[in-house]
Amino acid sequence: VGEAHPELVSLAALEPVDEALRAAAVAELDRKTKPRGSLGRLEVLAAQIAAIRGSLRPDPLRSAIVVAAADHGVAAEGVSAYPQEVTRQMVANFTSGGAAVCVLARAEGAELVVVDAGIAQPPADPAVRSVRLGAGTANAVEGPAMGREQAVDGIVAGAALAAELADRGVNALGLGEMGIGNTTSAAAIAAALLERAPAELCGPGTGLDPHGVARKTEVVARMLDRNKPDAGDPVGTLAAVGGFEIAFLVGVALGAAARRSIVVLDGFITGAAALVALRLAPAVRGFLVAAHRSAEPGHRPVLEALGLEPLLELELRLGEGSGAALALPIVAAARDVLVEMATFDHAGVTDTGR
Amino acid sequence: VGEAHPELVSLAALEPVDEALRAAAVAELDRKTKPRGSLGRLEVLAAQIAAIRGSLRPDPLRSAIVVAAADHGVAAEGVSAYPQEVTRQMVANFTSGGAAVCVLARAEGAELVVVDAGIAQPPADPAVRSVRLGAGTANAVEGPAMGREQAVDGIVAGAALAAELADRGVNALGLGEMGIGNTTSAAAIAAALLERAPAELCGPGTGLDPHGVARKTEVVARMLDRNKPDAGDPVGTLAAVGGFEIAFLVGVALGAAARRSIVVLDGFITGAAALVALRLAPAVRGFLVAAHRSAEPGHRPVLEALGLEPLLELELRLGEGSGAALALPIVAAARDVLVEMATFDHAGVTDTGR
Repeated sequence: VGEAHPELVSLAALEPVDEALRAAAVAELDRKTKPRGSLGRLEVLAAQIAAIRGSLRPDPLRSAIVVAAADHGVAAEGVSAYPQEVTRQMVANFTSGGAAVCVLARAEGAELVVVDAGIAQPPADPAVRSVRLGAGTANAVEGPAMGREQAVDGIVAGAALAAELADRGVNALGLGEMGIGNTTSAAAIAAALLERAPAELCGPGTGLDPHGVARKTEVVARMLDRNKPDAGDPVGTLAAVGGFEIAFLVGVALGAAARRSIVVLDGFITGAAALVALRLAPAVRGFLVAAHRSAEPGHRPVLEALGLEPLLELELRLGEGSGAALALPIVAAARDVLVEMATFDHAGVTDTGR
Repeated sequence: VGEAHPELVSLAALEPVDEALRAAAVAELDRKTKPRGSLGRLEVLAAQIAAIRGSLRPDPLRSAIVVAAADHGVAAEGVSAYPQEVTRQMVANFTSGGAAVCVLARAEGAELVVVDAGIAQPPADPAVRSVRLGAGTANAVEGPAMGREQAVDGIVAGAALAAELADRGVNALGLGEMGIGNTTSAAAIAAALLERAPAELCGPGTGLDPHGVARKTEVVARMLDRNKPDAGDPVGTLAAVGGFEIAFLVGVALGAAARRSIVVLDGFITGAAALVALRLAPAVRGFLVAAHRSAEPGHRPVLEALGLEPLLELELRLGEGSGAALALPIVAAARDVLVEMATFDHAGVTDTGR
């Protein structure tokens, strides 16, 4: 199986977050000038950041958003409200700065890294990093979307990008994606790994009507029936019914965690990537932050399986990393509270221990 | 009644937000490169900002957080987990930069304006703006917390500060507060104006145990029984059972709305202030943004009465304006999406109308 691949074995041998530092951060937060726990989930997040970064005084957030794009053979089954060429058009929009994720990343001071993991027609734009695993996946209703080696290559390439960003000082990585048809691939991955019915994972995506959702559900059932992915084999499942950008993002998550970076998930598709990463390396969980709960109904069971409670609930359903970008200031604020707030002692404020 | 006071009459004659611009913003957002409505509540907020600011291309957010502090005579009834001197100690912490709201305002680039609206012992610190309505309110279980003229003076002073900030270019105002005992005063205001039982509005505040909450509930009942505030007289209710910082924040909200600023509420206490403002000037509602839903149980009915859905649900229960500060980047992002995103036409992306 894929886990035996030497590079995957090394990625899966992830050192977990530091639980002693999490506990120390909780104690430190209790010395800050506020009633115990009154910053709610911001305190939980601050302690997680300490555990990830291995410090009670973690560095200020330096963030990047990796938007991986690829095409999906299964788009031929009419599972999206948009034609396949929109993947490539939107990638051009990412590099020219007009897409939602560009605006949001700019606002939050995050670097945007746009990756072609396998768009049908490769963009000529040098601002797009080319890590092409193919010219779009095969149609998974007819056979595996990609070969196992392609899936492994994608994971390894994603991990390499995460390492490169860490080398440049990035310590918080938002995950984003673009790919017409990719909610279908994500639903198939999640249905397979969670052993749930396709109907529980399929939703309107970018804007299907109920008839379209029914067709998509039937397509996912056919993908699973044709490929019979094994829930115990995450790489095999990814190869059978996944997408190139999803494979790449699995690697980004694992590679970022290996470098003790904070991994900020976006919506349903990055959630499916995180699920594959979690099955490969359970210790990745401690590094994951769920930015938001998407309006896409399948996101809920995916977040439950990941054991994550999202920071935002804004009914977003765009993808691209837009939700991850919106959550970054909250992650930065949690770090700041831990490092910059005064203690009761220092500020001369009466502490009643409440 | 207070509404007849000339300065209040002028504040209450508020021009509502521009509904035509809200509709135009919704149409403009539908031209942006994303499926219709896929940015969820961020799009609703963007349209509200256009309606408030009176423009389809509103200026970038320039924000300030006004933290008003005062003491409450009712603190003598043992309704807080903290002694009264903590109000003054925390104000010193606000100006020295160590409190949560300082850290969060800094992170979001918001100016912090600290106001003494009536702390028992006035701070000597010149960084605190003194708008003292008295040396703490009277104990409202024994009679009115303040006179009607004091309440009016507080509202007028708050509106004057909002106008001054607008003159300096601030277009988004976060509301914050500090005052030992002020969840009790806020609960009494909300119980009176919403005609609900005190038990529905009273919670642990900064950390009461169930016994303390029961005592606080009983104190609120006594405040209402002693003063018998009239739900149809918001200024009279504010004077009878409110607080100096709450009166001041009523004015900040009204004055900010009069200058077409975005008003970002924090938690339960600023919610009670907004409730008074809404009863004085129903048009203020269009200017209000609820930053978060507090862990304080009384915040839910207050938000319902305000007709607001909060942006964040992080189980915060600190006050100070901490939640308002955390929501500011989302407000800024909503404006950026409206102004900076490319349209389908401009970016050459296929629009299927979904």
